[in-house]
Amino acid sequence: MGKAVLFSDFTIVTSHDDYSVSVLEHAYCVIFNDRIRYVGSSSDDAGKIVSEVSGNDYEVYDGKNKILCPTFANAHAHMSMSIFRNIADDYALNDWLFGEIIPREDKMIEGDFRYGHLLSIAEMIESGTACAANMYDGALITTPVSSEAGFRVQQTIMGKKCVDGKWSANEKDVDEFYAVCKNLNSDLIQGSLLVHSIYLYPEELYPALTELAQKYKLPISVHISETLVENENCMKQYGCSPVEKLNSFNMLTDTTVAAHCVHLNDADRSILSEKGVWVAHNPSSNMKLASGFADTMSMDKMSVRLCLGTDGAASNNNQDMFMEMRLAAFMAKGSTLDPTILPASKVFHMATRNGYLACGFSDCGIIEEGMKADIQIIDYDCPQMWPLGNPVSALVYSCGPKCVESVMINGDFVLYKHELTKIDLERVKAETKKTMERLR
Amino acid sequence: MGKAVLFSDFTIVTSHDDYSVSVLEHAYCVIFNDRIRYVGSSSDDAGKIVSEVSGNDYEVYDGKNKILCPTFANAHAHMSMSIFRNIADDYALNDWLFGEIIPREDKMIEGDFRYGHLLSIAEMIESGTACAANMYDGALITTPVSSEAGFRVQQTIMGKKCVDGKWSANEKDVDEFYAVCKNLNSDLIQGSLLVHSIYLYPEELYPALTELAQKYKLPISVHISETLVENENCMKQYGCSPVEKLNSFNMLTDTTVAAHCVHLNDADRSILSEKGVWVAHNPSSNMKLASGFADTMSMDKMSVRLCLGTDGAASNNNQDMFMEMRLAAFMAKGSTLDPTILPASKVFHMATRNGYLACGFSDCGIIEEGMKADIQIIDYDCPQMWPLGNPVSALVYSCGPKCVESVMINGDFVLYKHELTKIDLERVKAETKKTMERLR
Repeated sequence: MGKAVLFSDFTIVTSHDDYSVSVLEHAYCVIFNDRIRYVGSSSDDAGKIVSEVSGNDYEVYDGKNKILCPTFANAHAHMSMSIFRNIADDYALNDWLFGEIIPREDKMIEGDFRYGHLLSIAEMIESGTACAANMYDGALITTPVSSEAGFRVQQTIMGKKCVDGKWSANEKDVDEFYAVCKNLNSDLIQGSLLVHSIYLYPEELYPALTELAQKYKLPISVHISETLVENENCMKQYGCSPVEKLNSFNMLTDTTVAAHCVHLNDADRSILSEKGVWVAHNPSSNMKLASGFADTMSMDKMSVRLCLGTDGAASNNNQDMFMEMRLAAFMAKGSTLDPTILPASKVFHMATRNGYLACGFSDCGIIEEGMKADIQIIDYDCPQMWPLGNPVSALVYSCGPKCVESVMINGDFVLYKHELTKIDLERVKAETKKTMERLR
Repeated sequence: MGKAVLFSDFTIVTSHDDYSVSVLEHAYCVIFNDRIRYVGSSSDDAGKIVSEVSGNDYEVYDGKNKILCPTFANAHAHMSMSIFRNIADDYALNDWLFGEIIPREDKMIEGDFRYGHLLSIAEMIESGTACAANMYDGALITTPVSSEAGFRVQQTIMGKKCVDGKWSANEKDVDEFYAVCKNLNSDLIQGSLLVHSIYLYPEELYPALTELAQKYKLPISVHISETLVENENCMKQYGCSPVEKLNSFNMLTDTTVAAHCVHLNDADRSILSEKGVWVAHNPSSNMKLASGFADTMSMDKMSVRLCLGTDGAASNNNQDMFMEMRLAAFMAKGSTLDPTILPASKVFHMATRNGYLACGFSDCGIIEEGMKADIQIIDYDCPQMWPLGNPVSALVYSCGPKCVESVMINGDFVLYKHELTKIDLERVKAETKKTMERLR
């Protein structure tokens, strides 16, 4: 018999696939094993179901002054980069990337990938995130780490090799990834092929990568139009935009996750919309690195599918989806002078349901019977969220990591009343501190 | 004998009046009564001084994995408005203000002012803020409340009356304010004259208010150029900008706090710079209400004195200066495409020293011998701030309310290891919840 929990007398907030948000007051939710078995207002029905499924062996979690809602899925992260947090800020992008980050990345060893990744999982869980699209090298190290920590991940696979200065696709990377995954909880893992961007690889590599992705039915993770310079260089080299060029390689599909998309034109947005590409918007990183303000309003109007990401901790410098929700709304309103656009309900949907769909987990992100039990408990019994007002507004505009009391992933508590249950945080801190001192 | 504390082995971060920031590792700080008596690296000197001043009766506060830095001074707030948190979001400005906020404000009774104000103090203290410029009615109610809670405030006084439809200055308001202050801790209180804006009063009232401010040596608190509509209307009515018009009334001096200043031209910035006006920048509120992006870069270049504010909890929806520091930097970088401007050290100075100066507390906001003891303790032993990296970047780009462990104001702990010491929070929550239900 698996684990059963009766969440009793909560304010339950969830969005639905039609973008509507429902708020149920004095509501109940039953979890058994990895799934939601009941959501509703009847204490009797909830009690009956939890007794039946668990043989009366269940926990009751009290919901006074608490919200139960879906956890977040962070659709763009570079998780091991938490070891570079706050080492180089207020730099011009090139000085930052080529002067400060890449030279340190070149010195990374296995433990840096492992503990940096775990540190990010700890930070994300503590801020209500249960799932991330991790665009980073080290899949064979970090995928087992995610799984042991009970964390959902869409992990990128490199899938390319360079022999005598010539690049080609590399099936071996994919095979090795799946070999590692065999021993892990497959519920928690999706793979994806890393295509860094249109500017980092030689032209002939792209078709080979498309072929590889198609052969293994892998989604593609790619950065698109993060900066004006990227667009200008693409125009010079290829005579078209990054979206158009990647599309010419058949890289844009309804499983592709395209990060940033700050500088698009209508033709680009049309393509992204038509192909069903997931756009991972990264408001903090785009502002901090001065990439610009992504035009989410125009994307939304053209039915481009939007989700949210934090980017890496070296360019944010947090991995907190509450911050990204708020900034997505703020940036959209501030840059258009229209306070009604990208309302709280929409950014909440982007951060929850759409993030999960982008990461390939189709039965997560909504609090409904039959869905996977990825749930967070928000304690609003604190000055920053009091009095509650509209719970959706409160989640987007007032809530933060301090209010996250518990997080459940796939039916397991990974944060239980403010304590991480699966991560040896002291070890993680000791190891990442050593790394920072070594790479300083 | 007063209270003495030896802060032992901390990372001490402070800015100085030349905008430089110093970071002292393994440092010590001695507090006695309301003042800082020692800051430095010598454990021996610190021990000698604390023993001398306290007769060996002192507390030792351990600094392992902790930062000691100045508390924030929030230079623009409407504190009792916390009772309107999350009731009306994603509205157009006029619908929000005239449809949702003002009708509720018209129904406010004494307890709403009192407990809304206390709720804001609780939220601010928990997020490292020790001082606020409170632009709101109810001074006779809220000033004693601030003082009892041990919180510094620059409180606005209304100073105007309407008889038979004719407005004039009202000395009685000022006299009553000072009468109330007589019984309070004068260390914690500054007064200021509320001049809402150039658009809310009849023209003849402004010179009368200037005269009142001059007679009582009162600073003036005013909203300037928050929206384009405000500027357009001012141009239509007076043929000039709000800055120019207020300046023509001699309302702009080196004690004036001008909130927002989103839409200025070079002539406006020249005047603000020349007069030494304090500009309270409110990035969250300006983005959320879609007022626009204040051009802090141009203001800074022209030596306009910048500080930071949260605005009211109804338009933010937090009162968290960590958020405002980050967004000030993000907005400046994102809107100019220059990631090097408004670096962490500058926004930290704006949020600390400059905020205190704007609020009229000249011996606060710097961790130096002889200054008032307004101090916060940041616990960076947590995933969101780990590994620490550059402490100034970490405070601005990674820290948040969750990491604020203790806050001392005027030498008293008002937050001690995550517990509020002077506020009956259960009472405050019960009363503000009743208010929200009454005004819903």
